[in-house]
Amino acid sequence: MPKLVLIRHGQSAWNLENRFTGWWDVDVTEKGAAEAKAAGELMAAKGLDFDLTFTSLQTRAIKTLNLALEAMGRLWLPTEKHWRLNERHYGALTGLDKAETAAKHGEEQVHIWRRSFDIPPPAAEPGGTYDMTNDRRYAGIEVPATESLKDTIARVLPYWDERIAPALKDGQRVLISAHGNSLRALVKHLSNIPDDEITSLEIPTGQPIVYELDEQLVATDRYYLSER
Amino acid sequence: MPKLVLIRHGQSAWNLENRFTGWWDVDVTEKGAAEAKAAGELMAAKGLDFDLTFTSLQTRAIKTLNLALEAMGRLWLPTEKHWRLNERHYGALTGLDKAETAAKHGEEQVHIWRRSFDIPPPAAEPGGTYDMTNDRRYAGIEVPATESLKDTIARVLPYWDERIAPALKDGQRVLISAHGNSLRALVKHLSNIPDDEITSLEIPTGQPIVYELDEQLVATDRYYLSER
Repeated sequence: MPKLVLIRHGQSAWNLENRFTGWWDVDVTEKGAAEAKAAGELMAAKGLDFDLTFTSLQTRAIKTLNLALEAMGRLWLPTEKHWRLNERHYGALTGLDKAETAAKHGEEQVHIWRRSFDIPPPAAEPGGTYDMTNDRRYAGIEVPATESLKDTIARVLPYWDERIAPALKDGQRVLISAHGNSLRALVKHLSNIPDDEITSLEIPTGQPIVYELDEQLVATDRYYLSER
Repeated sequence: MPKLVLIRHGQSAWNLENRFTGWWDVDVTEKGAAEAKAAGELMAAKGLDFDLTFTSLQTRAIKTLNLALEAMGRLWLPTEKHWRLNERHYGALTGLDKAETAAKHGEEQVHIWRRSFDIPPPAAEPGGTYDMTNDRRYAGIEVPATESLKDTIARVLPYWDERIAPALKDGQRVLISAHGNSLRALVKHLSNIPDDEITSLEIPTGQPIVYELDEQLVATDRYYLSER
């Protein structure tokens, strides 16, 4: 019985519009909600079950989790929500159309911002449209001004170590609903993926990714649930 | 700024069919979902906000909470789900049509089961259609075979004392989404309502009930949010 399943939120409004989203709190589309529900139905049909669930503080991941759990008859499972599972913060790119940004800064520069391991985009302007430093949900934490994937990994892993790994070692079956880059952090860690490969690993929306783990939480298998 | 709001789940399928529900996990109707959303919109419009939320292990209360929080842009708030906030267990009446039950046992007997303070309905049959003793969500707890309102209050209040009251004393603003009888337990406690009066206090679905509390959690006011 698999212990760990990861799921990236269903399609969001800005996935659809091809805009950089990051920490901005964009909702799922109707298609995204349907993906989440289908993921729950698939997990139930394959006999997966859980004891504990985790998600970010972002609506698209929370709703994906809730819709999947509802489809499984498991809305009653405990859920922990934490900012460390949030999407990578895209800094000053937040809200921008990806094609327009490429036209303005050049394809190559945008490729660097999106696909380099340790180069963050320019920092967000304080007081700008997408400034989230005064959002009450982040009271008491330092909202990043921008993040590279490396930065994202550095703030995801302490949460894995402190909350998720101990629950797994304790025998609990865990479902995590999160984001492209916070899940890359976990996949890199669990599957030992090199820095220059993880940046191009695509994590599709609404597809449960199953990890088989041994008692030391070393991955013995990883697969899309839809393919087994 | 009010510290505590109670909300009974929106209309459920068995509210509509007039059947005894209790611990059976019946979903909200479309109308019930709309009530939950409207409750969230009302709370947001009135400027209410929360730090911590509580609900039962039953889908209709959890969904009501989630729909209200979504309408408030507050899905990211922490939620604790606990069986002690579940509806009163209706024993052998679970699943029965209220009119049919009255025809069979007499209006007077049904009135006693529904409206007495300390007389429980007959116990549920082990292995019956609505037996929930093997439901995984209740692993490790003793699922009651039936409950009077007095029994319900006796298992709700320890959770109030252990989890909810300390959070309120700590200055956290609390939203509780629960059920007619688990909320009667709280209202009786907070508003000092006598045994023979609490049984007939009606708690409408999807209506936020606001409690103003002093520092010792003594109620200084209680009102429907829709009336202020």
